[in-house]
Amino acid sequence: MNENTPTVGVVGLGSMGGGMARSLVRAGLATHGFDVDASRVAEFCNEGGQGGVFQEVGPSLDIAAIVVVNAQQTETVLFGEDGLASVLRKGAVVMSCATVSPDFARAMETRCAVLGLQYLDAPISGGSVKAGQGALSIMASGSNAAFEAAQPALDAMAENVFRLGDAAGPGSALKVINQMLAGVHIAAAAEAITFGISQGVDVQTTVDVISKCAGSSWMFENRGPHIAEGDYTPHSAVDIFVKDLGIVSDVARAAKFSAPLSATALQQFIAASGAGLGREDDSAVAKVYARNAGLKLPNVED
Amino acid sequence: MNENTPTVGVVGLGSMGGGMARSLVRAGLATHGFDVDASRVAEFCNEGGQGGVFQEVGPSLDIAAIVVVNAQQTETVLFGEDGLASVLRKGAVVMSCATVSPDFARAMETRCAVLGLQYLDAPISGGSVKAGQGALSIMASGSNAAFEAAQPALDAMAENVFRLGDAAGPGSALKVINQMLAGVHIAAAAEAITFGISQGVDVQTTVDVISKCAGSSWMFENRGPHIAEGDYTPHSAVDIFVKDLGIVSDVARAAKFSAPLSATALQQFIAASGAGLGREDDSAVAKVYARNAGLKLPNVED
Repeated sequence: MNENTPTVGVVGLGSMGGGMARSLVRAGLATHGFDVDASRVAEFCNEGGQGGVFQEVGPSLDIAAIVVVNAQQTETVLFGEDGLASVLRKGAVVMSCATVSPDFARAMETRCAVLGLQYLDAPISGGSVKAGQGALSIMASGSNAAFEAAQPALDAMAENVFRLGDAAGPGSALKVINQMLAGVHIAAAAEAITFGISQGVDVQTTVDVISKCAGSSWMFENRGPHIAEGDYTPHSAVDIFVKDLGIVSDVARAAKFSAPLSATALQQFIAASGAGLGREDDSAVAKVYARNAGLKLPNVED
Repeated sequence: MNENTPTVGVVGLGSMGGGMARSLVRAGLATHGFDVDASRVAEFCNEGGQGGVFQEVGPSLDIAAIVVVNAQQTETVLFGEDGLASVLRKGAVVMSCATVSPDFARAMETRCAVLGLQYLDAPISGGSVKAGQGALSIMASGSNAAFEAAQPALDAMAENVFRLGDAAGPGSALKVINQMLAGVHIAAAAEAITFGISQGVDVQTTVDVISKCAGSSWMFENRGPHIAEGDYTPHSAVDIFVKDLGIVSDVARAAKFSAPLSATALQQFIAASGAGLGREDDSAVAKVYARNAGLKLPNVED
């Protein structure tokens, strides 16, 4: 490995992985992008990236960032048929970026170690815009060797790297804690804003006033305007929180931890998805509240 | 009435009313304080305020701020035996600052109007420190005449006055919306922080990391350190949210508005109060989560 110019692979060129791959190219790192959607790879190649298949490119990679949707896809990418782990050179580092349970992260680290691979438990936060700017927050834990090997990629992709422990687990734990709060806060924003309509308060007034009061949250300030404008273009979709609060629920149950707010918020996102809103912006959970109360949201025909 | 130097009464010299009364004195307004606890009135008189009883002082007041705990106390102060409303001069303004339902606020406005009194629906937000600094946020609605009459007191007590409508109702509605979010966010912070302990993440790490991530809220940043330090000195007590989320629940039910997160958060505060924690800081709701999961919070013997 040449420490100064490592070769990086990014598996998954979606809204997060695509932006991360472009940030790596911009930082001057040789970067291979992989995706089941060939058009995404072609687009990335037009932007200075490279394509390829695991069997050919894998041995040349120093860093492999896995930016897929969930634990199952992560496991398939690494250890499925023709998986990446079997072709990476010893000492290469796997950065696992999906939201997964801490137990899954520990299991992956162990299986990678058997093959002589470093493993960084490295879930990401910040959204697609920051991914494209190289300004993500990464909640990372792993060995010193894993951090050292991944450093050039972390520098290119992240504004904040939280270094949370010397083995896999804490990185994913913090990400799950963050998603727990984020999911509850989005549903709470929808609950409060729609409740306001029931009291004759228009949505823009609620957004403007509460943003300056103790009832505010990062999610309220970010998602409130989507509801006020009636713009449900998915920046992050309802189904993402069906998935992530599902992980919260599974991890909490396994720990015998009673998490009633997370469980309740999950039900509201499930109801939104069940009503056909799974691919809309997660703020569309407000439509569940509005329908249940016979209320009209701004710019929503119903 | 002398518009330049109105005489003000503050009914209720607790953590909020006491600070507001002192802010009025500091602004040069002649201010009478009233409280069922005579020692609070005596203390206020030592700080430049004045005391008295409604029957004697009432007719001299231009502005009467009612800063009591709830709707029942507000009604008793104004319309109970020897109540204040019966002795105020016509044209004086009643500022009602407790968290109450919009319907109650409208009823009070109507009853005051019968007596020729102005009424400002004026719930407050910001906590005792800001009350003492004259830097509260006030969510206010009422007639132009009510706002004009109250202006010198608003200037002395508030940093932000949200002018939300020309009659009682919207002020209280926004306050109820704010308390809905604040209560859910405090319980969510407790749920997430304690869940973190179950995953081996120490409280200070959760507070430090999440405060910089999308899972943060005003309440998380404010109450999280209380839990990390194990300091449950009541800035705002558990029982305040038993009361305020109870109002949310009542108002939502009356509107046939399903509010599952607020209802769930209320249950957690009720459990905290039932467990004997009602007078501790509202962040003590974390103790309910910890006990239910057999976990230990920092600096809490259990």
